Amino acid sequence: MLQFTDVEAAAARLKGVAHRTPVLTSRTLDAMLGAQVFMKAENLQRMGAFKFRGGYNSVNALSDDQRAKGVVAFSSGNHAQAVALAAKLHGCKATIVMPHDAPALKLAATRGYGAEVVIYDRYKEDRNAIGKRIADETGAVLIPPYDYLPVMAGQGTAGLELLQDAGALDAMIVCAGGGGFLSGCTVAARHLHPAIRMYGAEPERGNDMQQSLREGRIVSIDVPRTICDGQQTQSVGKHPWEVIRSQVAGILAVPDPVVVEAMRFAFERMKVVLEPSGACALAALMHHREQFRGQRVGVTLSGGNIGMDRFIALMTGAEVVD
Amino acid sequence: MLQFTDVEAAAARLKGVAHRTPVLTSRTLDAMLGAQVFMKAENLQRMGAFKFRGGYNSVNALSDDQRAKGVVAFSSGNHAQAVALAAKLHGCKATIVMPHDAPALKLAATRGYGAEVVIYDRYKEDRNAIGKRIADETGAVLIPPYDYLPVMAGQGTAGLELLQDAGALDAMIVCAGGGGFLSGCTVAARHLHPAIRMYGAEPERGNDMQQSLREGRIVSIDVPRTICDGQQTQSVGKHPWEVIRSQVAGILAVPDPVVVEAMRFAFERMKVVLEPSGACALAALMHHREQFRGQRVGVTLSGGNIGMDRFIALMTGAEVVD
Repeated sequence: MLQFTDVEAAAARLKGVAHRTPVLTSRTLDAMLGAQVFMKAENLQRMGAFKFRGGYNSVNALSDDQRAKGVVAFSSGNHAQAVALAAKLHGCKATIVMPHDAPALKLAATRGYGAEVVIYDRYKEDRNAIGKRIADETGAVLIPPYDYLPVMAGQGTAGLELLQDAGALDAMIVCAGGGGFLSGCTVAARHLHPAIRMYGAEPERGNDMQQSLREGRIVSIDVPRTICDGQQTQSVGKHPWEVIRSQVAGILAVPDPVVVEAMRFAFERMKVVLEPSGACALAALMHHREQFRGQRVGVTLSGGNIGMDRFIALMTGAEVVD
Repeated sequence: MLQFTDVEAAAARLKGVAHRTPVLTSRTLDAMLGAQVFMKAENLQRMGAFKFRGGYNSVNALSDDQRAKGVVAFSSGNHAQAVALAAKLHGCKATIVMPHDAPALKLAATRGYGAEVVIYDRYKEDRNAIGKRIADETGAVLIPPYDYLPVMAGQGTAGLELLQDAGALDAMIVCAGGGGFLSGCTVAARHLHPAIRMYGAEPERGNDMQQSLREGRIVSIDVPRTICDGQQTQSVGKHPWEVIRSQVAGILAVPDPVVVEAMRFAFERMKVVLEPSGACALAALMHHREQFRGQRVGVTLSGGNIGMDRFIALMTGAEVVD
């Protein structure tokens, strides 16, 4: 199982490489929710999302011989960019398997970091199998997006920094797809503050992790149709699940329209840009505010990689969200 | 003339009250411009702009007897909110004189801070005279938006922090309207690094400060028609001018369309929201990049108070910018 020492080691690797992103506060939000909220602005992280932490930590942890054969990753977007950028920084080759409907901005950014992109059909093909085949054929190391200890450890450094900067918190809400971010932050947070309650935030229509926690086993669902493109995972990873099953207080499901509201609030009041999945934890806090009244709550703003056109479509209602 | 000790005193007053805003960097921007750029994100400041610094410092510097009679301010927006919020934090009454065409978001925010708002016609009435009349009638202290040492000192703390966090810089570009921000930052910066070159950034159609520097006297212009609503001043203030005339290396004029480009870049690549005037210094660096090649350059991102509708209109071209 992931240990706190893994997160500490990742923090040492990332020092001076990842941005130490600011913790934002908003008195307007605090008044609105009746809580004291500390938001870790990972949208201001390198390549626009927390995923840089896990990607860099994973590539950095490889041996020189391993890196010489390159790395391969599959991802709906931010992990792809993270591994591509991490590979570039280490001077090694990256092959990235991305879905045909990944946001254009993410595709372009991944290629911009010098990675080779292989496209697959999200609804028909198995990215896992494609990634493994490339790894087998080339000898490259496969770096999975969440079910991998070095990725989980890297993501956990964001939770570590949040607690270092905000001080003790009653609860922390972390956006959850495959569970890498949530499990990493949970291990970091509960080591520092054993009484902290950790929550995952999931889109309502992709609530596999909520179902898994309820049933006490990993539940797998169809690819969820949600605007939260970073959270279209079908099931939680096995390694994250080991942490989540026993140490997470609950999963907060969020309707997509509330995610749009949170994106708008972040824009208008906090002056930051969030992609849908990046706003999911804030939306969860807004939607479930009664549970957190009077508390000191940490929230991850996990990414800001959204194109202007998509953002405007969501804000104007040109893209219908239900 | 404004002294470094005034800025230091303001920094002490603002400690724990103003946000210590982050200094953002973007390797994409650095590669694009061939310079190393350090951006002071004052759009993430309380009430969304650096103006909070000057407003709070001014109200805090008053005696209890003075504050008991209230404060009055005139402003196109951000200074209004700053004084309104500062007054609220000190438990004193604020009356704010605002133009009829001030952005709705700024009007609403000012009233939201509990201030009384008095509307005037920007193109017909003299806000200075209106402010003075209210001060005379009520005994309230008038807090001008820039031509006032405590405001200049407060704004200068942003430049101080930028240098503390980024280290020595070759140049710093500060957006300039009445010159409060530019003069405050100049006094702070040149005390710490006497060789630093300080630049103001002005919209091309409102380049009164550029004209003033060229002619060696304060030049006054008609109210400029520019999208940069925070910089529609007609002339530099007398107190800022004392600093600017002798210590500023130059004024960089920026066409409005480049300001829109800078806003788009900030959104897409840096994940932050800037209002037009808030993007003016970044736009100036983009437009005059040859002058700064190979240098370490500080830039103020001075504010993010723009409504969603206006932002979308500017980004889609629904509001024509020329």
